[in-house]
Amino acid sequence: MLNHSLIEKIAKQLQQDDVAALLVAPSHDLMFLVNHKPYLCERFQAFVITANKDVFYICNQLTELEAQGFMENHPVYAWKDSDGFVEVVRKAFERYNLLGKRIAVNGAVRAFNLVKLMDAMEFTPTNGKDYLELTRIIKTSEELDNLRKSSAIVDKVFEDLIHFIQPGMTEGDVNNEIIRLCALYGGEDCHGGIVAVDANAANPHYFGTSGVIGEHAVVEMDFGCTYKGMYSDITRTVIVGEATEREKEIYNLVLQANLAGEAAAKKGAWIPDVDLAARKVIEDAGYGNEFNHRLGHGIGYAGHEAPYIHGDYKMHLDCGMAFTVEPGIYIPNEIGIRIEDVVIINEQGETEILNKCTKELIEIKRD
Amino acid sequence: MLNHSLIEKIAKQLQQDDVAALLVAPSHDLMFLVNHKPYLCERFQAFVITANKDVFYICNQLTELEAQGFMENHPVYAWKDSDGFVEVVRKAFERYNLLGKRIAVNGAVRAFNLVKLMDAMEFTPTNGKDYLELTRIIKTSEELDNLRKSSAIVDKVFEDLIHFIQPGMTEGDVNNEIIRLCALYGGEDCHGGIVAVDANAANPHYFGTSGVIGEHAVVEMDFGCTYKGMYSDITRTVIVGEATEREKEIYNLVLQANLAGEAAAKKGAWIPDVDLAARKVIEDAGYGNEFNHRLGHGIGYAGHEAPYIHGDYKMHLDCGMAFTVEPGIYIPNEIGIRIEDVVIINEQGETEILNKCTKELIEIKRD
Repeated sequence: MLNHSLIEKIAKQLQQDDVAALLVAPSHDLMFLVNHKPYLCERFQAFVITANKDVFYICNQLTELEAQGFMENHPVYAWKDSDGFVEVVRKAFERYNLLGKRIAVNGAVRAFNLVKLMDAMEFTPTNGKDYLELTRIIKTSEELDNLRKSSAIVDKVFEDLIHFIQPGMTEGDVNNEIIRLCALYGGEDCHGGIVAVDANAANPHYFGTSGVIGEHAVVEMDFGCTYKGMYSDITRTVIVGEATEREKEIYNLVLQANLAGEAAAKKGAWIPDVDLAARKVIEDAGYGNEFNHRLGHGIGYAGHEAPYIHGDYKMHLDCGMAFTVEPGIYIPNEIGIRIEDVVIINEQGETEILNKCTKELIEIKRD
Repeated sequence: MLNHSLIEKIAKQLQQDDVAALLVAPSHDLMFLVNHKPYLCERFQAFVITANKDVFYICNQLTELEAQGFMENHPVYAWKDSDGFVEVVRKAFERYNLLGKRIAVNGAVRAFNLVKLMDAMEFTPTNGKDYLELTRIIKTSEELDNLRKSSAIVDKVFEDLIHFIQPGMTEGDVNNEIIRLCALYGGEDCHGGIVAVDANAANPHYFGTSGVIGEHAVVEMDFGCTYKGMYSDITRTVIVGEATEREKEIYNLVLQANLAGEAAAKKGAWIPDVDLAARKVIEDAGYGNEFNHRLGHGIGYAGHEAPYIHGDYKMHLDCGMAFTVEPGIYIPNEIGIRIEDVVIINEQGETEILNKCTKELIEIKRD
């Protein structure tokens, strides 16, 4: 089922930008347009919207039937493995008068496929990653509600984890429990996330599984799932055993930064100021270089989407926006602590912190 | 740990092709070069090999530490979320004299990131997808052995499935059992695969889960896992209840095509001829249009890699190559049947069919 109003909106935007068409490869973006997510392998496929409001699909014969299923009698141009996709794209580009024009690509198109097209025909590629992300930057009431429910699931998971974690477990053990609990509480796409012990957490995107929780350990957990397609994303860091003064100092700094960021995240706030509000807490304490990433990212049908919360994202927060606030301090070979909530500016213009589970420092002690 | 001999090989090839550098985003390709697979989000990151044998890495600060861990003191150029990646890439390109030159991208680089680079600096992008795939097209004895073991795992899984499948189960139930059994028998990356009932299987890349196995049903299962990193990939189609004459006819045609393809897959064979040997069986029976994909694909550290087995892949089969033979017949709104094995040309130049489980038509009858 095509989303005709969204297609019309995008087409109008393309016209304003003097872009002749947008290629959308399988992704959350495409899901929004056609209510279906085809499987993407190395073979080129894309939904195409032109500035003239035409739509068509290009795919391998392998998925022609599938594409016809959601394209509502709009053309599907299918290519054969033994012929390659370039000539079929050229035929479609000629038909819709796209040759020589500016053609945008969404975030999922692969560069090597774009290069094949550029080698074979005349057009100017442009970055179209934002077209669809920006159309869904303001969530509907229903979407906000699903975000709330998605966050409530991971809150419950975290509360159970406090009772689950034991010395001797591996990061993988904890991650498997996260996956199990997310599913148990009604999450979809329960992919687990990051579980990082001690110095492993100094790498903010650590994805190992073999680290073992010792009698004394710092355990950082960053995970999410979806509910009716809307993502959750939470990070909590707990101490197994008794926290040292050093751990308390760093934890408290990150917590103050998290609270400062959330306090600044008001309707109408300038996004770089929100980033700075949290960052300043950490910088003032001398750990500026150890907070080496943006404050957060938008969240919705994709785990990461607009608005991105950093010093160069020039936009004001508005009703219906949803994003994370997730400051961290990462000290190589020593420790990493991050605290993350999902935050929305709701329909009334109020700031709502969707994650309700505690951010106080938790010390897990077992007898 | 960097694979210096592979880097040298690629650099030499780049020199021959008058390409100044290859950008390798996280992927199986990168795993081969640095023995590590960083997590890829929307942020640009790439390992760069120049024709002068220099290597360096570009990534977000977020993963700088991780990259330093595998780069053995080679430079890591890290960019900040608030600055973006383009200026850091420009600095590196200037340092290595890459501006204005031909720059290749591997299969994992995203088009929108390439476009951002093209908008900001002068260079000619080229398709570098094959550089790494071709260097691993000839498997070592150890890799061939791991492919054998990987296929042995899915053979055992299939044998168990014959006893598991029952009317009333959904496609998702069968897929979950596949995941469980693959792990039980020692598989890694047990991602399940396609389970498609009746007309759902007419879409060769169907990924639904809600179809229900009836008292009479055609159940197509296409799945794999890895063993020491090497993929398996098997498709078997079984009948629940008694096969109709029509089902027998189509099954038998696909089986004959599978056998003809495997018989043609000899050392030295011209790949288009191998594709044709199988295809002709199906074409001669009048179902040519219903076999709408290539005969197969190479397999190894990636599920799909060179050599691709179709009419336009101009290469001879040689010792050490591993690939699938997977003809199918897909009739919209009715049925889909595919039979797939992994095949290797072994060290002695013999053709080995790695999947040993039966391809005879199986009728599952429960009392």
